[in-house]
Amino acid sequence: MKVGIVGASGYVGGEVLRLLLSHPKVEVSMVTSRQHVGKFLHRAQPSLRGFTDLKFSELDYEKMSDSCDLVFTAVPHGTATDIVKALYDRGMKIIDLSADYRLHNPEDYGKWYGWEHPHPDYLEKSTFGVPELHREEIKKSQLVSCPGCMAVTSMLALNPLIKNDLIDTDHIIVDSKIGSSGAGAGAGTSHAMRAGVIRPYKPAKHRHTGEIEQELSQTAGKKIKVAMSPHAVDVVRGILCTNHTFLKKDIDEKELWKIYRSEYSEERFIRLIRDKEGLHKFPDPKFLVGSNFCDIGFDLDRDNNRLIALSASDNLMKGAAGSAIQNMNVMSGFDEFEGIMYSPLTPV
Amino acid sequence: MKVGIVGASGYVGGEVLRLLLSHPKVEVSMVTSRQHVGKFLHRAQPSLRGFTDLKFSELDYEKMSDSCDLVFTAVPHGTATDIVKALYDRGMKIIDLSADYRLHNPEDYGKWYGWEHPHPDYLEKSTFGVPELHREEIKKSQLVSCPGCMAVTSMLALNPLIKNDLIDTDHIIVDSKIGSSGAGAGAGTSHAMRAGVIRPYKPAKHRHTGEIEQELSQTAGKKIKVAMSPHAVDVVRGILCTNHTFLKKDIDEKELWKIYRSEYSEERFIRLIRDKEGLHKFPDPKFLVGSNFCDIGFDLDRDNNRLIALSASDNLMKGAAGSAIQNMNVMSGFDEFEGIMYSPLTPV
Amino acid sequence: MKVGIVGASGYVGGEVLRLLLSHPKVEVSMVTSRQHVGKFLHRAQPSLRGFTDLKFSELDYEKMSDSCDLVFTAVPHGTATDIVKALYDRGMKIIDLSADYRLHNPEDYGKWYGWEHPHPDYLEKSTFGVPELHREEIKKSQLVSCPGCMAVTSMLALNPLIKNDLIDTDHIIVDSKIGSSGAGAGAGTSHAMRAGVIRPYKPAKHRHTGEIEQELSQTAGKKIKVAMSPHAVDVVRGILCTNHTFLKKDIDEKELWKIYRSEYSEERFIRLIRDKEGLHKFPDPKFLVGSNFCDIGFDLDRDNNRLIALSASDNLMKGAAGSAIQNMNVMSGFDEFEGIMYSPLTPV
Amino acid sequence: MKVGIVGASGYVGGEVLRLLLSHPKVEVSMVTSRQHVGKFLHRAQPSLRGFTDLKFSELDYEKMSDSCDLVFTAVPHGTATDIVKALYDRGMKIIDLSADYRLHNPEDYGKWYGWEHPHPDYLEKSTFGVPELHREEIKKSQLVSCPGCMAVTSMLALNPLIKNDLIDTDHIIVDSKIGSSGAGAGAGTSHAMRAGVIRPYKPAKHRHTGEIEQELSQTAGKKIKVAMSPHAVDVVRGILCTNHTFLKKDIDEKELWKIYRSEYSEERFIRLIRDKEGLHKFPDPKFLVGSNFCDIGFDLDRDNNRLIALSASDNLMKGAAGSAIQNMNVMSGFDEFEGIMYSPLTPV
Repeated sequence: MKVGIVGASGYVGGEVLRLLLSHPKVEVSMVTSRQHVGKFLHRAQPSLRGFTDLKFSELDYEKMSDSCDLVFTAVPHGTATDIVKALYDRGMKIIDLSADYRLHNPEDYGKWYGWEHPHPDYLEKSTFGVPELHREEIKKSQLVSCPGCMAVTSMLALNPLIKNDLIDTDHIIVDSKIGSSGAGAGAGTSHAMRAGVIRPYKPAKHRHTGEIEQELSQTAGKKIKVAMSPHAVDVVRGILCTNHTFLKKDIDEKELWKIYRSEYSEERFIRLIRDKEGLHKFPDPKFLVGSNFCDIGFDLDRDNNRLIALSASDNLMKGAAGSAIQNMNVMSGFDEFEGIMYSPLTPV
Repeated sequence: MKVGIVGASGYVGGEVLRLLLSHPKVEVSMVTSRQHVGKFLHRAQPSLRGFTDLKFSELDYEKMSDSCDLVFTAVPHGTATDIVKALYDRGMKIIDLSADYRLHNPEDYGKWYGWEHPHPDYLEKSTFGVPELHREEIKKSQLVSCPGCMAVTSMLALNPLIKNDLIDTDHIIVDSKIGSSGAGAGAGTSHAMRAGVIRPYKPAKHRHTGEIEQELSQTAGKKIKVAMSPHAVDVVRGILCTNHTFLKKDIDEKELWKIYRSEYSEERFIRLIRDKEGLHKFPDPKFLVGSNFCDIGFDLDRDNNRLIALSASDNLMKGAAGSAIQNMNVMSGFDEFEGIMYSPLTPV
Repeated sequence: MKVGIVGASGYVGGEVLRLLLSHPKVEVSMVTSRQHVGKFLHRAQPSLRGFTDLKFSELDYEKMSDSCDLVFTAVPHGTATDIVKALYDRGMKIIDLSADYRLHNPEDYGKWYGWEHPHPDYLEKSTFGVPELHREEIKKSQLVSCPGCMAVTSMLALNPLIKNDLIDTDHIIVDSKIGSSGAGAGAGTSHAMRAGVIRPYKPAKHRHTGEIEQELSQTAGKKIKVAMSPHAVDVVRGILCTNHTFLKKDIDEKELWKIYRSEYSEERFIRLIRDKEGLHKFPDPKFLVGSNFCDIGFDLDRDNNRLIALSASDNLMKGAAGSAIQNMNVMSGFDEFEGIMYSPLTPV
Repeated sequence: MKVGIVGASGYVGGEVLRLLLSHPKVEVSMVTSRQHVGKFLHRAQPSLRGFTDLKFSELDYEKMSDSCDLVFTAVPHGTATDIVKALYDRGMKIIDLSADYRLHNPEDYGKWYGWEHPHPDYLEKSTFGVPELHREEIKKSQLVSCPGCMAVTSMLALNPLIKNDLIDTDHIIVDSKIGSSGAGAGAGTSHAMRAGVIRPYKPAKHRHTGEIEQELSQTAGKKIKVAMSPHAVDVVRGILCTNHTFLKKDIDEKELWKIYRSEYSEERFIRLIRDKEGLHKFPDPKFLVGSNFCDIGFDLDRDNNRLIALSASDNLMKGAAGSAIQNMNVMSGFDEFEGIMYSPLTPV
């Protein structure tokens, strides 16, 4: 299959590129970057030196539809709206890594992003790209929108609890911690100023809340609210979501494991973490670097009737590019784990 | 004043030592360490080379009571019980940095620490060493027990909320993030295995919960429960407590600031962080390294009626040694900020 | 091919295991660890959860020779001498990752390691495991000894200079910088004490010097001395060797590149780094994490007639486990890059 | 004494400000920053919240000469030339932290910086600000230029060797490693891209070479060349210089220590590091954070006749702001250690 990438000079686009270059079913035929037109890919992605002789092109829809069967768009939020539409109108399959086609309700863009969506009628054409939740729809979809990194990590832990009506839906707190690669290479993130931070960066009203609420509400069949607070910590790759919930009924540890197992035992990219000893009693993104897993575990706080559901991932893999390839595999009828079944690098 | 330190080869004891060596009212006269008897202090505390010619001694109560007016005990939890008693019985002033005299109710040692306190009748002799809460008692106390680092950081943010009866006390969630120096130099913390972690290490039933509940309950005049979950992150010094609370009444930001200001405007070591721009909109321990401040701020999540009270400190300073010196200053009638009013090092 | 690993609970053994579990030509049939006998591999190597159901065994030579065609030994220096001999005497193929069979001259063990080799007559049976230097011998070898991480990284940059007689052999300075995973999880490496170090740890007489001198001397046909100084820096994986050399003749940049190219153009795991712009003008292990490459580049200091030859690698890959698999591939007639041709993870 | 700072929003200016605000002999009366005119200092320097109510002003020479006795200039290289001249012409005392007045020979600006100095006749008015080398001149100087961070750290280790004619001056190699705060907050230093680097960033012809050569040549009475290669490593504050030198004569360790001691025993900010055990056998900037020390030590490599002289500092303290205050103290007749005799923070 011939595949293109729009915007491959950033972290997410670079990771999509890295994975595709080793994917057995795919040929990367076109890669764009406004900044680097005409230059070798390794100029922006030095790690890939030796893996391809391709150069960056300009974004030319004509050429792209001639040379690609499927396109990944990895451009900043707000700038994918037109690009995705243009590719869609040419009949191409698209996997979008921005937030621009994640929310189904156009009004949610006003609420969470502060702008009006220019193509609201295209939102319903987009499938929310979490195969564990929407595999069948993804198979048939022309446009798949990959989830936010914190959103997917959190909802995979929370969804079984909502589905089984286990928790008080008035007090769902998602306290997440994330590495610097999640932010792109923007302002205010110089090393000296970001090293060693434990920085709350949007304690209320973070944008990913919208996606989590959308998906959990769909599961619940009623409006679910989530209270999310992300924090920047000193790591490059990695997300941990500490999902604090309060149990509605008396349920023991074994039953909880049973529920998680019944939900996820067939899922290759979800690992349930349960150990009484050793280094890895609970999920920790340290043990996920470079892999497409979402590790899920929990602890019970009987004094407070609290269930702490913990989920971790590599924000550039399961949280972005890995999920994108997983979606491509599903859309294309490949084995779902093709090209992304890497073991985590440890220690790193 | 002549001061001794029992156990000065670790991080906390070393920090007490560092501060005392530059304290204008104090002479360090005796420092013990089982491991390093007879060796220069800089063997264990290389940073202090050139600041003293003192050597480590054995713990000899006789000599200690002869040569010291006040003693800091900085030994592991569980090993201070007898030492503190022995010093107390000799009539010495003691500032203990372990957990062994923090809890007033002997049963709480069973609950949180899993052992029975050998000297339960001494617990009432001990004052909980947070001057912002117990200044007058500390002044008159012979034995002051310094708080746990996460405990003091969290309770300073929560106490005004409890005192003013603002929050739902059934859903107080303390999600804390802490650096490696908080753990001491124990097993399982090798650099390669700890670098880059975002590790939940005791999602339920963490020991510091006991102290927070004790203090907040005293403020509330009723039993308060706290749902605490600490996480190890990749930094050496620093704690952030994200205290998720739910408001019982409709209150706006200005009123909240007023409450915090009225509580803390006279407190030299508490800074209220309130900025709409810049690097420091919310507390972040990055901007507290080496200082004795506890920075407090908050954000409001109207969708969920949630108040996120944020508090940060340097776990070895306000979270341990800095508080200890502050307590010494209060006990000794010195200016409370003597020897600890350092500005944070930034960037570091 | 059935493969065993002796000592797979450490970093190097774990990395060998990780690579083998995804190697298309290999089945891992036996893995030993004294500490973890009877436990699942993921207890010690949590990243590998889901990749195998194997458990740790005791080291039983009988069973090992029944169930394995080839064995990797990844035990601490000094403890491999007997194990390797025992396996060798049973006729097994061995790839040793300790230093115990690297040096050909028994006296060198006295000089660099301070002990006498108990099986000096086995040293000549061992091939020094750098395929770029000894591919033909490795093919025929029963016992291959993998190089030290700093040694292989340095010698790959220096060898072409020696071979072409370009540099003053009285002033070869190898200033190397290495991450914490190179040291194992031993004493003195707690996170709080190792984070942020730039620590010279053996400025003179480091053990890897012996290997570098052995190999360069063989190339030169005369005794070559190397002045090596390693430094611990704050990274988990990665080595940079700054090889300061002084040119004997006037040679320009182009000729130097030509020499390196003629040496390495066929080598899949050596990348020559030459860029005037961008992030990667010189080798940097940041861009090598998880890969088996050794990146080589240089700069010329005309004022001092100095050639700075720079080489970088991932110390657990090309510096240990990756080289080990590369050796296995060579010994077994597999494609040399089978199972180790991963692109580096960036950013990480 | 009333003191001003031109350019206090960066790391170096912020550190000067931090130190001055706690200096017992100084009142900070004016602080400029083009970006932040009219804003409180803590907007750019959040750590200093609570330490001053001063606001940033525009640079107004008239007001500055009215309100300040001495001015620190902490602006980027190349932009201090005119500012320093303007202040000098008004008769003010100036301590410049840029490179613009470090080199005495105008031609050296062409060689090392690539531009022509606009006020070459002012270069001779400037004293090179290393009190350990030029204390008497500094006392009488109106303009003192603070050294580059790597330059001062390196030359303090090398100068005694040159002075005593101990080393081969054709092979002086300075391999330095430095943290991210040394670079300012410029492009290419985003956290995700800088974390974990071991990056050679100017293996030949680094600008600080010029200063080191100038000073060592003055000591030697002949032209001395230095072969310098700096590397970026993952730490915020800290420099280590590994100065590889080759001995001209047979000299033992004791004699070397004697030479260093005779040179530096009276110097309060130089610590000779000599220990056979413990954490701090050699200089390591880990143990210098926040202090004004330069730690010096060495090792002997008899096989190569090599003396490895090691020197470490906090690049924002002894390498910049600390040296600047030290110079101010000398110029003003204060005790030289006033306001800068802080013990290092450890661990951090």
